[in-house]
This record gives sequence, structure tokens and C-alpha cells, in this order.
Amino acid sequence: MADRPRIGFIGLGIMGAPMAVNLIKAGFPVVGHNRSRSAVDRLVAAGGQAGESVADVTRRSDVVVTMLPDSPDVEAVALGPDGILASAAPDLLYIDMSTVRPQTSVAVARAAADKGIRVLDAPVSGGEQGAVEGTLSIMCGGEEADFEAALPVLRAVGGTLVHVGPAGAGQTVKAANQLVVAGTIELVAEAIVLMEASGVDAAAGLRVLGGGLAGSRVIDRKGAAMLARSFAPGFRVDLHHKDLGICLDVARDAGAVIPLGAAVAQLMSALRAEGDGSLDHGALLKVVERLSGRRRD
Amino acid sequence: MADRPRIGFIGLGIMGAPMAVNLIKAGFPVVGHNRSRSAVDRLVAAGGQAGESVADVTRRSDVVVTMLPDSPDVEAVALGPDGILASAAPDLLYIDMSTVRPQTSVAVARAAADKGIRVLDAPVSGGEQGAVEGTLSIMCGGEEADFEAALPVLRAVGGTLVHVGPAGAGQTVKAANQLVVAGTIELVAEAIVLMEASGVDAAAGLRVLGGGLAGSRVIDRKGAAMLARSFAPGFRVDLHHKDLGICLDVARDAGAVIPLGAAVAQLMSALRAEGDGSLDHGALLKVVERLSGRRRD
Repeated sequence: MADRPRIGFIGLGIMGAPMAVNLIKAGFPVVGHNRSRSAVDRLVAAGGQAGESVADVTRRSDVVVTMLPDSPDVEAVALGPDGILASAAPDLLYIDMSTVRPQTSVAVARAAADKGIRVLDAPVSGGEQGAVEGTLSIMCGGEEADFEAALPVLRAVGGTLVHVGPAGAGQTVKAANQLVVAGTIELVAEAIVLMEASGVDAAAGLRVLGGGLAGSRVIDRKGAAMLARSFAPGFRVDLHHKDLGICLDVARDAGAVIPLGAAVAQLMSALRAEGDGSLDHGALLKVVERLSGRRRD
Repeated sequence: MADRPRIGFIGLGIMGAPMAVNLIKAGFPVVGHNRSRSAVDRLVAAGGQAGESVADVTRRSDVVVTMLPDSPDVEAVALGPDGILASAAPDLLYIDMSTVRPQTSVAVARAAADKGIRVLDAPVSGGEQGAVEGTLSIMCGGEEADFEAALPVLRAVGGTLVHVGPAGAGQTVKAANQLVVAGTIELVAEAIVLMEASGVDAAAGLRVLGGGLAGSRVIDRKGAAMLARSFAPGFRVDLHHKDLGICLDVARDAGAVIPLGAAVAQLMSALRAEGDGSLDHGALLKVVERLSGRRRD
């Protein structure tokens, strides 16, 4: 792989777009592709090139990165007839940074191995802010040697980079991550409603919680917005709902019993059922308010 | 109040003892009392004085601090016939740093007001480590002026000091704190079991979770011990069980519905029912392991 390998980036959404820009800023030549053309135009304006299709991007790249919404998207883009594996030279390194089922990552890795293509599942945590700042946490499954080969690319978009196991392991850790994030948001929401319903200054209370063993990045990053009922995404409820479905599947497959994970998945479903799927996941506060008779919308 | 008011400290347990020592180190004269005499002897060895009884300590002090296990203890020590209020001069400042029911704090504050005694409820978070290091988070209910008068004392034992509202408000915030702490420990336990049951390196996984939006002081301070199944307290399950009982009462009184809080209270009860009440609350991991068929003890 060249010193500055050519990067193909497929999926220029809320997360993908700033990640691709950070790769450009780090000096990589980046060719991008996205279903809607406007995102590609913005990448070109930021110094990237336009790819005409998945196959076009793959042929023009040493490393292909995908950042797509869900498992079927990755299966289509990676395994489809004009997909990455069908279009790739044997020395391609393919890094899927989407959050998908571990089984999808394993299936892609197996199909790629048959063609001599190296694959990593490398989902991220840290949200839009982490993507913009290039400080994402990246949990990586696949061969150790491939992880090391990918490090120069991953460093341009991430702060914490950890190889956690074989193909699919990155997705398993991401599932655990999404369980902890959703659960922590829900706990903070319950704490806020508990304090407000008791007539206590919840902003002051949350400040002191943040300074002790209850402290979390959720309080630091989302506490103020939750107190202000500001639920513009950020990370959408629809996506977290999808991720918790993966998490419950992973738990069932592994025989792990996760009572709080199961409960918060139901609360996220309730939020979505009320039509709030496009809000930030901090809107779990609305579910607690509704349950507590403190909101009528 | 003098520049260095005389402090009476009642309740020299795991938390109280190091807090009293930090007051001595900060230059306050401290007279201590405890049900078992050995704790008083240790305070004397650290430069404090021995109080013979609650009444004796109260009469020799400008500020009395209590750090006791539960609501009935505070009611007996504060309101009993030879208790603090019965023995106090009218200008006493009484700071109860125990974790008790908000109603107990309100009852003590009302009784004290009748005698012109100032009272604060000032429960803490941060555990034994925070008590030893003098970095506790302190959530304070009571009159703002009394909070300001108490600040020199509170600064000697705490890092984050916040006035959160009137009498009882400190306890309400502490209840919210204990909800978030127990819930976060349980979420981390579920994440660990999910990763281990899936054959993923949970230590590596937890490292990456700690670097992203899932990051928390629970992961930072308790993650390694939980991975190692090291459950020496720390903060005992029995006490956290007591605190979650207070939390559920506060929620019911206020009409707040806290689904994850209720669920983790049940899991803490299950841990205690198995005879693990004297372990550190990180032992919630054992409940998840038992539920998942991964432990037989």
C-alpha cells in the first residue's frame, strides 16, 4: 500500500461526510460516492473527487471505506453484482465502518477471503461531533495485520482505536456500546424527571451527578440539551432503535441475558411509536415524561 | 462562627473516618464520636479528640457533622432525647452528610428551625476513594446562607459542592445519583457479559467503550475490578439496596416513573438475596452472569 493510499468513501451522510473530509485534510486522495448526488458535490467542494458508482470508486481506490445505514445496505454495496468485492483488485483493503449485524460482517469477511481481499469491521462511537472533530472511538474486528495496515487511515478519523477480535467482533462491541449509551441516556432522563417532579433544581443536580461516580460522557455532552428539551439530532432514534435490535439479537445468539438492555430497547420503541424517530436519542426523556404524566404532546 | 470552627463528627465508618481526618488536615479542631470506640481511638491517633457521647460532641462544637448508615440512625442521633438538637446551642450549624429519606431531612430541619439551629442535608458521592482524597461530590439542601457558611467545612472533604434546593433537596439529588450509579454499573455488567458470551475480548471492548459516548466514571473506576471479578467493597450492596429503596419511595411520592431504576433495584435485591450484600456494588455482574447461565456459585 502506498504511503498515501487512495481512499474510496461510500456513504456520505451525517457521519460519513465529515469523516471523508477529515481524510482529505489528512492528505489522502478521496473519491466519494453517495446515493444522493448533492453529498458528493459537497465532498468535491472540500477537495475530494466524485465517484460515479460503487464499482467506479472501488476501481480507483487502494482502501474502500463504507459508512451505511443498515445491514442490507452493506450487503448490497459489498456483495452485490456491481459491488465492492465484484469490482475489487485482490489487494484491496475494505473497511466497513457502518453499524450492522455481526453476521453481516462475518459473511462479508468470508466472501472477501475467497478473493484475497482484506476486510475489517470498524464501527464507530462518538456521534456527529466525534466525526467532525476526528475523535471517534473505533472498535475493530478482523485480522490484526489488517488492523495495523488500516491504522494510518483510522487515525485520520478516530481518537481511540482498538482491535477487539476477529471478523464481527467490532460489531459485537458496538452492540454493547449502543446498549450502554441508550441505557445511560435513559438513566439520566429518569434522574432529571425524578428531580424535576420533586421540585429540585435539576440543572444543579445534574452538575453534581456529573462530578461523582454517576458522571458520564452522556451527562457531559447531552445533559444540557436534555434539560432544555433540545432534541435536534445528533444521533437519530430510528438508528439507535435499529442498533438495539442488533444488540438483542447478539445477546440472544450468545445466551447473554440483558435486562436493562431489553427494557431500554422497549422504551426506544415507545419513543419511535409516538412518531419521534427522527429526533435525537436524548428524546428518551420524552418517554419518561409521558410515563410520569408530565407531558401531553 | 470562628475562623476555624470546632467540628464535631459523629459516625466514623468507611466514609466518615477519612472525612474527619481531612477536616483535621485542613486545620479544624475535630472531636469525634462513634458507636464502636476503636474508630474514635484511630481519630485521636490522627490528631482528633474523643467525644464521649452525641451530647458531649455537640456541646463542644460549632459545627456538627453526621455520617450515619440510615434514616433511623439520623433520627435517633439528631432528634433523640440526648441527641444533637436537644444538646445544641442555638447558633449550631448541623450538616447531615448521611444518605437518608428526604422526609427525614425535612423533619430534622423543621425541628431544628423551632430551636434556631441551622441544618443542611449534604449527602455525598464518590465513595471511599473520594472520601480519602477529599474529592467527594456534595449535593446540599437547605438555606443558601447556611450552605455558604458551611463551605469552608465542605471544601475540606469535597471537590464538587452544589446547593440544589431547600431542605431534603440534597437527598433527592442523592437518590437520583444512586439510581444513575446502580444503573450504569448494571449496564456495564450487561456489556461485559454480552462481549464475553460472544467470545470477544471484553477488556479491549471496555477500553473502546470508555473512549466514546458510552464512557463513564463507572467504567474508569470499576471496569477493571469487574473484569477481574474483584468485589471487595468499596460501596456495599446492602447500602446501595437501602439507597434504591429511598429512590423508589422518592419517585412514588413525586409521581415519577423510572423503569430502569425499578429494574436495577430488583437486580440489586436479587444480588442481596443470594447472600452477596457485603460485596461491592460492582457485583451486579454476578447477577447478570447467573441470569445468563455463566456462573454457578
